[in-house]
Formats: sequence, C-alpha cells, structure tokens
Amino acid sequence: MNVNGSPTRTIRLVHMEGEPSIEIIDQRKLPHRMERVNLHTVEDVARAIKDMYVRGAPLIGATAALGMHLATCDAVNYAKKTDQPDNAEIRFQSRFREHATLLRNARPTAINLMWAVDQQVLIAKSSPTFNERIQYTRERALEIIENDVEQCRLIGVHGLEVIKQLSAKKAKRTVNILTHCNAGWLATVDWGTATSPMYHAFESGIDIHVWVDETRPRNQGAKLTAWELGQHGIKHTVISDNTGGHLMQHGMVDMVLVGTDRTARNGDVANKIGTYLKALAARDNNVPFYVTLPSTTFDMSIKNGITEIPVEQRDPAEVTHVDGLLDGELKEVLISPPESPACNYAFDVTPARLVSALITEKGICEANEASITAMFPELV
Amino acid sequence: MNVNGSPTRTIRLVHMEGEPSIEIIDQRKLPHRMERVNLHTVEDVARAIKDMYVRGAPLIGATAALGMHLATCDAVNYAKKTDQPDNAEIRFQSRFREHATLLRNARPTAINLMWAVDQQVLIAKSSPTFNERIQYTRERALEIIENDVEQCRLIGVHGLEVIKQLSAKKAKRTVNILTHCNAGWLATVDWGTATSPMYHAFESGIDIHVWVDETRPRNQGAKLTAWELGQHGIKHTVISDNTGGHLMQHGMVDMVLVGTDRTARNGDVANKIGTYLKALAARDNNVPFYVTLPSTTFDMSIKNGITEIPVEQRDPAEVTHVDGLLDGELKEVLISPPESPACNYAFDVTPARLVSALITEKGICEANEASITAMFPELV
Repeated sequence: MNVNGSPTRTIRLVHMEGEPSIEIIDQRKLPHRMERVNLHTVEDVARAIKDMYVRGAPLIGATAALGMHLATCDAVNYAKKTDQPDNAEIRFQSRFREHATLLRNARPTAINLMWAVDQQVLIAKSSPTFNERIQYTRERALEIIENDVEQCRLIGVHGLEVIKQLSAKKAKRTVNILTHCNAGWLATVDWGTATSPMYHAFESGIDIHVWVDETRPRNQGAKLTAWELGQHGIKHTVISDNTGGHLMQHGMVDMVLVGTDRTARNGDVANKIGTYLKALAARDNNVPFYVTLPSTTFDMSIKNGITEIPVEQRDPAEVTHVDGLLDGELKEVLISPPESPACNYAFDVTPARLVSALITEKGICEANEASITAMFPELV
Repeated sequence: MNVNGSPTRTIRLVHMEGEPSIEIIDQRKLPHRMERVNLHTVEDVARAIKDMYVRGAPLIGATAALGMHLATCDAVNYAKKTDQPDNAEIRFQSRFREHATLLRNARPTAINLMWAVDQQVLIAKSSPTFNERIQYTRERALEIIENDVEQCRLIGVHGLEVIKQLSAKKAKRTVNILTHCNAGWLATVDWGTATSPMYHAFESGIDIHVWVDETRPRNQGAKLTAWELGQHGIKHTVISDNTGGHLMQHGMVDMVLVGTDRTARNGDVANKIGTYLKALAARDNNVPFYVTLPSTTFDMSIKNGITEIPVEQRDPAEVTHVDGLLDGELKEVLISPPESPACNYAFDVTPARLVSALITEKGICEANEASITAMFPELV
C-alpha cells in the first residue's frame, strides 16, 4: 500500500551488481523511522526473522522463501569453488542444508517459515543442475509472494461486500471499524488480511473510520496499524485496548475486523491476546465480528481451538517495559515496580460462537466445521 | 498498609513549629520513588489535587477537608493582621471564600472534593469564633479521614467472607483474584476498596494471588496496585489489560474485585475504562464479578447508568505516550505515529446484569434498586 504516496510492498528481490539481495523494512523502528534494509546473506535473513525486522506469518514465509533462494545461490558459488569438480554436489548439499537449518531455527514456532523452507528444499532436490536450482528457487519464491498478494487482495474483495452493505444500511454515513493488533500489509506482502477490506473500501470511496486498538504489550496497533492507515490516508483513531467495549455500547462501532494466527476445525480462532474480549463486547452489543484469513491459516488437525491450541508465553519484559520515541531516539521505559512479576500470554482463542463469519480468499463462510469444509474440501 | 514494613497512610495532618501542614505521598512518582511531600498552603493543596499528587475520590475528599482546615487557619491569621478589628470578619470571609473556590476549581468533576469543601464551609459558617472555626474544621477533617478508614475496613471485613468461601471451595488452594486499575489504599486513606478484602484475606492467612491489570492508559494497576501489594507482601502478577479473558477461560481466575467511581440506582457501575470487558469475560466463564464501594459512591439520582452517566474524555496524550523509568529518571516515550489521532475515554459503565454483588461497608447486596434501597433506605 502507499507510503508517502508511493505504492510499497514489505519485501522485494533486488539485484545489486548482479548479486541477489532482499529488500525489507526494519519494522522494529516503525512508526518512528521508515528504514529499508538489504539482506545480502542467509545470515542476514535469519537475523531479520529472529530479531523481528519482519513479522507476521505470511511475511515471514515470503522472507524465508527468498532467503532459501539466496541460500541456493550461495551454495552454488561455494560448490563451484573447488578444483575437484566431483566434490561439487557434496559441497552444495552440505552448504545448502546448513542454510536451511539456520533459517528454520530463526523462529522455530513459525509454521509459514518451515513450510517455505521445505518448499525450496524440495525444489532444489528435484532440479538436477545448479542453474536450474537457482532459477526455480527464485521463481518459487516470487510465486509465493505473488500468491500472498493475490490471497490478501481477494480477502479484501470479499470483505468489501460486507462493508458496502453496512455503508448502505447507514445511508452512507461513516462506517466505523474496530481492529486489534496488526493484520495489515506490514504482516503480509501487500494489502494485509484484516486491513484488506478497509483498503478496498477506501479505494471504492466508502467513508470509513478505523478504531485502532493499541494492542499491548507490543503495541502493534498503535505502532504499525496506525502508521499503515495514516500513510494510505485512511481516517483512524488510536485507543487503549480497554476502550472498545465502551465504544460498542454507545453505537460507535459498526463492525470488528481482525486477523488470526490459527483457526481450528470447529471455527475457534487464535489471535493476538485481547481479541476474545472484543468478541465478547461485540456479541453483547450486536456488533458483527469478522475474522479474515487466508485458507493456509486453517489447522484442521485441531478439533477444539480453546482446549487444544497451545498459547505461547513471551518475555514478561514486554509487559513491564514500553518502547517509543524520546528526544528523537528509540528508548524503553520501565512501568511497573522492578520487584513485581509479570506474565505475557501472546494470544487467546475466541470461541467460534462469537465469530459472525470468516472472510477468506475464496469467500465468506461460517465459523464451523461444516461451513469450512464445504468451502475448502481440499483441507479435509 | 505497609510500606517497607511500616504501616502507612496516604495522608496525615502534621504540625511543624506550631504550623499545621498536610503530609502526602507524591503518587505521580510511584512505584519508582516513594516521596512524601508537605503541603503548607492552600495553594500547595490545590496544586497537589490538580496535578494528581493525590488521586482517588476518597483521598481527594480527605485532602480537600484538610486543605479547608489550612484555609481556615490562614484566613484567621489574615483576619487578625489588621489594626481595624471591626474588619476582621470581613477579611476572614473574603480570604476563606477565595480558598474554597481555589480548591473547588482544582478538579471540578471530583464530587468528593466538592462535598468536603462544602462540609467545611458549613462548619466555618456555623462557628462564631475564629478559634472554634480552627478547632472544628480540624476535627471534621480528621473525622472524615477516620470515617474513610473505617468504611474501607468494613468493606474488607465483608469481602473477606466471600474470599473465605472461595478458599474453602478450593480446599485452601490459592485463590486467584483479578483486579483492574487502583482501588487500593493509595486511592483512599488506608485499606482501599477493592484491595481491602485482599489485605484482610492476607492477614487472615488465606493463600491469595492477585492478577493486576496494568490499566492503560495511565497504568495505575502496573504502577500503584502492583506496588501496594508488593510492599504489603501479597503475591501478584502484572498483566496487560488484554489478558484477563484468556486467564478466565482457563480457570486461572476465581473472582474479579474492582472499585467504582459511581454506581447508579439500577446497579450499573461506572469504573475505569476496560472494567466492562472484564465483567463480560467473567460472565462468559462463570467467574464471580464483585464491585466494592463505600455507600457514598451510590448516585441515586441516576436511574440508568449506561445511558445517563457522562463519560469524561481525558488528554489523548495519555494514550499516545507512556511514562516510566529510564536510567533512573522518570521519562515519557511516544508510542504511535505523531500524526495519528487518539482518544481517551476515562471510564466505562458495566451493566448491573454482569455484577455478581456489591460489597459495601454495611454488607453485601445485589446490584439492583430493590437490594440497594433495602440496605440503604437513607439514600432513597
């Protein structure tokens, strides 16, 4: 989407003096700095994933896919640097495998990362020549990226219909959308998931305004979603996570639009901690609560999301400390007493009964097994 | 309650070289500094209220009551400094009224402040001599303070019974209590409201643990409640406001205990923004949700809390910025993009249907008009 008026993606493959590299945005510095970074080596890519220069499942997958293309190029160079040509294949394999392991270990719980690495390993294995390996891993990475863009675009096309109906129902007065965390283009390659319907509505000339939950503890809403929407020119207001219930009680929210990390077979939805509270408030006030997702987010091996999805705990320091801008520098302040313990569950699971519908790239379905499997028979 | 092992109150009247002054804690610096401040003049008192050295309705009331005692002493001194004794009463009145106005304007929406100032104005008016005015305003201020302590203590005595039952039901395993914001002794003179049952349970040897909502945007939970409980030796854990729903879903909360700024005739409860979301989660998971309050918090002129209680908006900078400790100094960082607007509703209203019971100084009653008026016929 737009940054400073220019269409921008979170990631792209560039060639500098013939050498491939990956251009990303260092998202840790947003919204205060917009810095592009070039990743030249597989080590660079691993660090960018591990240290969260890039985040969001689809973007991590895209980064890993391109990272494995760099790994292929590097392994080919390394393989060729020998005066014993018979050893070249062995040298390629050892170097390539080392890189794959490095990337897999950068964020071991990221399913999209594993999937992208596996895809590229398979392609390298089934391509006989070095040149083919280079060509096919590049093509596959670019295909993964374009597929992500297209999936996100389609989520927006389907979500747009929901917003259109709300706009018509309100006689074209402003449609107020509440969102939690960042399921925006910054988490994907472009469009985002929860934000894609917003961008489509905006582009269609529908009058929308977005309530942006700041999303403690990491504040991805206040930092990333607010920045995204602002850069694209979409009206929005940052609120504390505590505020949504009050707004819904007073008719100030027309719909909730969120993303998901994992959706169970029964329609239970894991998403950033606090999503469940907003779903409860939406239900209590008859506000529709929509979850947007590419179908790759379904985990049909999980029958019951609430009891079966393990909820990761992150560093308590994310709760006790907050970072932001001070005198032009990024700094971190301690909020709570140093001797008070804190705990930091990364996400929660919203029961399917609170979800109005799932908005996917194929269309809109109900949050239950029958409806999910009817739309995605290939997942069964 | 205890600070560094010593019983401590939030406010006391002291005499330094014969001159009365008010000793308070500068709560803006907690939990990082525990600084006592002496207020010598009415101007000092007004500033302490306005700039939130002291906060919490009961403590603001107590501070204003003592402030009006200082105002009386000062007006008497001023009245006597004339060589025309016939003018003394006029001089007293003009000075005293000036002070009363100064205090009333320090925080115009604080009902306890208005009430305390009015009380003292009445006493000064009905006391013929200067010495009586000094004596009676001192006595009334100290009475207001002791009444507050006793009310809070009694809330704890009644709340203790609820915790005892939960402890018995759990075969004496840890009782997990979730609280929001700071309805602690720091908001009153001693004991607090929501914390009073916790302190009583702790003193009775019941094993409790408190989940402390950080309570954005001002973080009174992470800063004040965590500090209070830690100083008194009560086990607690700071969590982001987003976390309570997940904890309740997984049986990790046995009860919710919160305070209230204003309770309507129908039992609707106004409290810090976000309270309503916790009440929804409690209901969804069969966790009892208790509201603690001194009966002075009932506003029987309000029939329906949700539609009638006006919700104050505070400075959006409280949402966009967070303050805390950095390199030993109190600093403030900017979280969100400077060009993104924010909004900051100070509290929300929890409908009576979500409130398990009200815990008052007189006992426990249901959150409805019949039950409230049966326990407090004097309010009708």
